[in-house]
Amino acid sequence: MRELLVHLDRSAGRLGGQVRSGLRDAIRSGRLPPGFRLPSTRALAENLGVSRGMVVDAYEQLIAEGYLTSRHGSGTQVTSACAAPQPAAAPGSADGPPITHDLVPGVPDLSEFPRAAWLAATRHVLNTAPHSAFGYPGPAGAAELRAALADYLGRVRAAQARPEHIVVVNGVAQGLSLVSQALRRFGRDVLAVEDPSSDRQRSIFTTHGLDVAYVPTDAEGIDVEALARTPARAVLVTPAHQYPTGVVLSPRRRAALVEWARAHDALIVEDDYDAEFRYDRDPVGCLQGLAPDRVVHLGSTSKALAPGMRLGWAALPAALIEQIRDLKTNADLGSATLAQLTLVRMLETGAYERHLRVMRAHYRKRRDAVAEAIAEHLPAARVHGVAAGLHLYVELPAGSDEEATVRRARAHGVRVEPMAAMRVIAPGPPAVIIGYATLSPDRLRAAVRLLAESVLPAAGRHG
Amino acid sequence: MRELLVHLDRSAGRLGGQVRSGLRDAIRSGRLPPGFRLPSTRALAENLGVSRGMVVDAYEQLIAEGYLTSRHGSGTQVTSACAAPQPAAAPGSADGPPITHDLVPGVPDLSEFPRAAWLAATRHVLNTAPHSAFGYPGPAGAAELRAALADYLGRVRAAQARPEHIVVVNGVAQGLSLVSQALRRFGRDVLAVEDPSSDRQRSIFTTHGLDVAYVPTDAEGIDVEALARTPARAVLVTPAHQYPTGVVLSPRRRAALVEWARAHDALIVEDDYDAEFRYDRDPVGCLQGLAPDRVVHLGSTSKALAPGMRLGWAALPAALIEQIRDLKTNADLGSATLAQLTLVRMLETGAYERHLRVMRAHYRKRRDAVAEAIAEHLPAARVHGVAAGLHLYVELPAGSDEEATVRRARAHGVRVEPMAAMRVIAPGPPAVIIGYATLSPDRLRAAVRLLAESVLPAAGRHG
Repeated sequence: MRELLVHLDRSAGRLGGQVRSGLRDAIRSGRLPPGFRLPSTRALAENLGVSRGMVVDAYEQLIAEGYLTSRHGSGTQVTSACAAPQPAAAPGSADGPPITHDLVPGVPDLSEFPRAAWLAATRHVLNTAPHSAFGYPGPAGAAELRAALADYLGRVRAAQARPEHIVVVNGVAQGLSLVSQALRRFGRDVLAVEDPSSDRQRSIFTTHGLDVAYVPTDAEGIDVEALARTPARAVLVTPAHQYPTGVVLSPRRRAALVEWARAHDALIVEDDYDAEFRYDRDPVGCLQGLAPDRVVHLGSTSKALAPGMRLGWAALPAALIEQIRDLKTNADLGSATLAQLTLVRMLETGAYERHLRVMRAHYRKRRDAVAEAIAEHLPAARVHGVAAGLHLYVELPAGSDEEATVRRARAHGVRVEPMAAMRVIAPGPPAVIIGYATLSPDRLRAAVRLLAESVLPAAGRHG
Repeated sequence: MRELLVHLDRSAGRLGGQVRSGLRDAIRSGRLPPGFRLPSTRALAENLGVSRGMVVDAYEQLIAEGYLTSRHGSGTQVTSACAAPQPAAAPGSADGPPITHDLVPGVPDLSEFPRAAWLAATRHVLNTAPHSAFGYPGPAGAAELRAALADYLGRVRAAQARPEHIVVVNGVAQGLSLVSQALRRFGRDVLAVEDPSSDRQRSIFTTHGLDVAYVPTDAEGIDVEALARTPARAVLVTPAHQYPTGVVLSPRRRAALVEWARAHDALIVEDDYDAEFRYDRDPVGCLQGLAPDRVVHLGSTSKALAPGMRLGWAALPAALIEQIRDLKTNADLGSATLAQLTLVRMLETGAYERHLRVMRAHYRKRRDAVAEAIAEHLPAARVHGVAAGLHLYVELPAGSDEEATVRRARAHGVRVEPMAAMRVIAPGPPAVIIGYATLSPDRLRAAVRLLAESVLPAAGRHG
């Protein structure tokens, strides 16, 4: 028992917190190795001279955080290495303690990838595809996939696209790369981008020689009047669920945006990145359906299936089709056919939409867990973007220090995305993005509790 | 029998040829529909008043050409539509008669794609890959594939590349696209290219703003002295099997090329497009192995498996790695992981090399069939590049009209690639490229016979 002893400073208060953090530190440092069986809560409480409730509370919290595993009949153990929460391979993960709760958005629940359905669809394709399916692909993609997508996007996203308007691309990133190159060719050297927005796409535009003009967004989405004051004649928007604020572009802004595009012979690029996931509201049709001659609609299977598939599509205005096909030819001749036909099979058999239904239910529970935990542990925060997607935009309580909060959360093993890097022209309230796709509701509740402690360290509720 | 009557002009000679072309025309025009059962050779010979041997010869030739099918017990029939030779979906195929013998190079035998082995490897990956395999790929590709390729390229191609030097790309085309962009960034605005060379890659370079300088090749490969007189500080070469002439870059030219690169701080881009297929000679190691700090080695599975996979690799000089990874990120974030891991499994289990061994034996037979048929039917032609690859460079008899020959062959249903489009600065003898990967030895012999007739129409050997 000696090695388990947690040093408590009874004059410092918050004894429960001290028990919890003492155990967590012992696990992180390796002093309690993977598989180590902990004493019963009663025994540890006696050893430490604290109430049994405090130890029960500490065990439960560390189970929720993934440090401990409770197995019926074998008590509570330190989680073994292979089952431990996987730290994300992302910038910063090499520094500091392991990430036990990764709330950085952008990735769906990879553990739910429909492996069996994908294998069955692959088998079907390999058993039935003509030999020509293995030849050089056409630059626009497999005719079967373009037909299936035209149908799917029309039905689910109210898009207006015929198969010949669609070019299959390797994810939205490649779509943006090709569109950037096309804009340069058409003499559109400035691309307007929403502020705030993802800072990860910026280099795609600048690599291809575009200048970026940032345009503020508000509760209705992008400010079209501000857009009109920029020199940009092309704009990238996220109308279904603004990234990161979660705002849905309002009907009058949609109309104004299309009007701007028509008046200025401009192009609208619609990144429909997470439109498959809607919870409490009717689907909002895509912008492309309003003005197929002015909007490039970009989508992918990265959220619906997995980003590792690199399968996406662009529904294009007629005037752009030839140019984009040509650029796709010069980029890589065309996308791999086998994966395209496998996706066709997933769409045909209904496996794709079945998977989406299952995941929608999962994600709704996770969103609810985060929203409820924030209401409980961080009641002064304001939560946005709850109706759709896989992330929430959370304004921290007024007066919070965003950077310090994110850093402190990270020290607790919780990784959330700060807003700072996503804002360029307009300052905003302290806020973070919480991606909730990859953790269970219990882990999410534990994560929010840790985040709440990071925001208000002086107002501890334990001990 | 009336509808079968072939009109013979006994004063024109070449009766056997008239029987054959009369039947062929009747099938092409639809007068003899798919499935039509032909009379016995004896009956037709009697009907036409020719020797039975002539009709046997005609039936055999049309069977080899794919127009007729001989089934044991049911005689000889016009090939039914679904089993008919598939015209290639390529420029020109919409014009004129159907392509019955496509000898245009560039595609391996798609009917031999190892579907079962690929499915088994996919199953293994889907059953065993960690969830993280479905997340965003790294821009350089899966670590497992880079390790497997470093081993494979070292063993089979005598390359010197560690896994961290390799970036997985979507085929050689994407490799060339990324390298072109990198050259621009490094201020290398002129790329030297072999003359003759494939005219299909040119637009990749010009799209990314490079000027192209053509450099003559001879029986030893690229003329390095001529290269040194260009302003180019980067060159694209095909050392293992020059495309299209089939020349192997000689040892002293290899040394001179590397010396040129070192003296001029230049980059060599090695397109190792068909190195897997060697027949009568020892493998020639890749150029990259001589100078890994100066050579970008590009390869793919397009010839070894199928171009529809879009799986390739670049082994890079250390100074280029970061740049190419960055450009790959901005092109599409990285290649699809599932196909990469499936290829790893194919390499690990030996299925990849087993497939190569089988195909090498197939292709050797096909090459032999073409070479022998040319020796028989076109003895005045000179054949080059026979030791490796999937195509031959065939110099037509002196005085032939290359363009007219290709056009006449096309009218006979035979598609061969003329050299004209591949020569830019240096004129050359009339010649064609014969890709032999996709047809059976019998079909190849028939094709060469038709080609020979197209070259020397006045010197008919029949009738």
